Amino acid sequence: MKRHKRKGIGNGEAFDEAAVNVKIAAAARKTLNRTGVRVGVGDDAAVWTPRADYEVILTSDWFLEGTHFLRNVHPAESIGWKCLARAVSDVAAMGGEPRCFLLSLALPTPIAGNWLGQFLRGLVRASRKLGCPLAGGDTSRGDKVGINITVIGETKKDRAILRSGARPGDKIFVSGRLGEAELGWRLIRGSRAASSSVRALLRKHLYPQPRLTLGKWLAEKRAATAMMDLSDGLSSDLTRLCETSGFGARIFEDEIPAARRAFLREFRKRELREAALHGGDDYELLFTASPVNAANIRAALFNGGITEIGEVTSARGIKLVNSSGAEIVLTAGGWDPFRR
Amino acid sequence: MKRHKRKGIGNGEAFDEAAVNVKIAAAARKTLNRTGVRVGVGDDAAVWTPRADYEVILTSDWFLEGTHFLRNVHPAESIGWKCLARAVSDVAAMGGEPRCFLLSLALPTPIAGNWLGQFLRGLVRASRKLGCPLAGGDTSRGDKVGINITVIGETKKDRAILRSGARPGDKIFVSGRLGEAELGWRLIRGSRAASSSVRALLRKHLYPQPRLTLGKWLAEKRAATAMMDLSDGLSSDLTRLCETSGFGARIFEDEIPAARRAFLREFRKRELREAALHGGDDYELLFTASPVNAANIRAALFNGGITEIGEVTSARGIKLVNSSGAEIVLTAGGWDPFRR
Repeated sequence: MKRHKRKGIGNGEAFDEAAVNVKIAAAARKTLNRTGVRVGVGDDAAVWTPRADYEVILTSDWFLEGTHFLRNVHPAESIGWKCLARAVSDVAAMGGEPRCFLLSLALPTPIAGNWLGQFLRGLVRASRKLGCPLAGGDTSRGDKVGINITVIGETKKDRAILRSGARPGDKIFVSGRLGEAELGWRLIRGSRAASSSVRALLRKHLYPQPRLTLGKWLAEKRAATAMMDLSDGLSSDLTRLCETSGFGARIFEDEIPAARRAFLREFRKRELREAALHGGDDYELLFTASPVNAANIRAALFNGGITEIGEVTSARGIKLVNSSGAEIVLTAGGWDPFRR
Repeated sequence: MKRHKRKGIGNGEAFDEAAVNVKIAAAARKTLNRTGVRVGVGDDAAVWTPRADYEVILTSDWFLEGTHFLRNVHPAESIGWKCLARAVSDVAAMGGEPRCFLLSLALPTPIAGNWLGQFLRGLVRASRKLGCPLAGGDTSRGDKVGINITVIGETKKDRAILRSGARPGDKIFVSGRLGEAELGWRLIRGSRAASSSVRALLRKHLYPQPRLTLGKWLAEKRAATAMMDLSDGLSSDLTRLCETSGFGARIFEDEIPAARRAFLREFRKRELREAALHGGDDYELLFTASPVNAANIRAALFNGGITEIGEVTSARGIKLVNSSGAEIVLTAGGWDPFRR
């Protein structure tokens, strides 16, 4: 994080970048731990010491006002939490551990009251929860709130789980219940009053939890052949994983873990099922494992937190088998309002 | 770089992210070298192998339309070059070598013709020249062109040169000639016809060159006590370096290397001097060295490419000594159009 960097060529009001950077530096101090950040916020760049026999995982993620969140709808604290949690989810998806992150923040000059303070509170909470301190970044004036997060993580050498390793016969697993974040977003968008029973759905949309423990376990045990996180919805992301691996998949509709039936007061059964297939933003893990490892995984089970939903096939394309045994071709239809 | 990541909540036209990512992946293939990128564009995250006994340098830099560049003024190829060069300059400022970078690119849907192709051409040229391959990133729809670059670099352990190490009596050096980028920007802004003699000024604004060789040499020889790059102008950046180190400085106006007198056809002498003191965007290096090391540095001299301009003082503040020996207090007045 460069302090006071103010260079620019556009026209605009004075942007008190120094004041913004003082707040960010104070937030950064609350997140520091012993993960190897030797030089943090305040110099030209951060200096971080990787561990011997580890590889470095690198990922950057946009989180943009108007594209990924709405400033008048989403609480600033949720934006702070979620921008980091979803970037860390990419590290979980490789089987890695997060080590530190860089925050690039563009702010419009007249930003409402304590927006920045609340944003940083959510960010610091996520940073501590995920063990991922703020090591640096950049600030700038922008027309809207623009956030870019880079997370630096690690896995032991050659243990990173890629998207490309799935083989025919491998079993397909997902963590958690799918579609909950999408249903939560529908509730917020529709401004429906949140009964206590649906708070879990709102939480899933506003404060997602990357599956770091599961991802790391799978990498350390070399238990998974391929993995990615579910950010755009099962139908889109499974298509990508299979295409990258060069194969297809057959999955069973009745096995896909949708949101709990408790939510049938708010949603029709078909909505739960559709959200589980196509809803995005869940940040659960999708992974494949050989039949032998699948048995070990089933035995370990993770408190019921993972579900086997089908298997990898040599035939390309994704087939969905419904309860009567009929197969339909599933096309990618992830959470994409731009195409609806 | 996640392929086809399309999630979003805003309204907007279809954004063909898949097509954008295919072009970026093709550009990335042109930049690959042997710097340890094991998994690049196309998975959840990149996997990079650091070298033993090195530390990792991490820096993120905004480059935003309307704030840092104007799309109707700056050539797309220059934007591609400069967004990477200025981020790499932060690695040079630590005495490091760049190893790979992440590109986060937000694009408006109706972007003119081959803007992306030209942008990527400039980016690939910079990437090859600087030895810094494209390892990943993120793409998104945005209202304007938004660029965020994260550069990952390395220095040998404990060799990174921070801003905080300057001590009273240390000599102060700068590389190159200062203010040239600012003068180049004035020519472009004023739409003055570029005579061949001023092309060097335009080049300095459009295609800056980070001082990697000098930075690395200083780190390896442990020759500098503090260093940073000149992005906001000498008066601003020297103030920062001195404040971070806890001291002040005395510099000599006649010693500051301004743009060559050849440009006196286009600019008044006073303009050259003011630009050298306050003009930003030069991406030259500012560093301090003990008197003993300063002698070694003067002996090495770098083909006349560095200049001693003054010394660190225990008294705070920056004093500028003019040709008649009078001292004035120099206040930070870096290149900041927001305050003009």
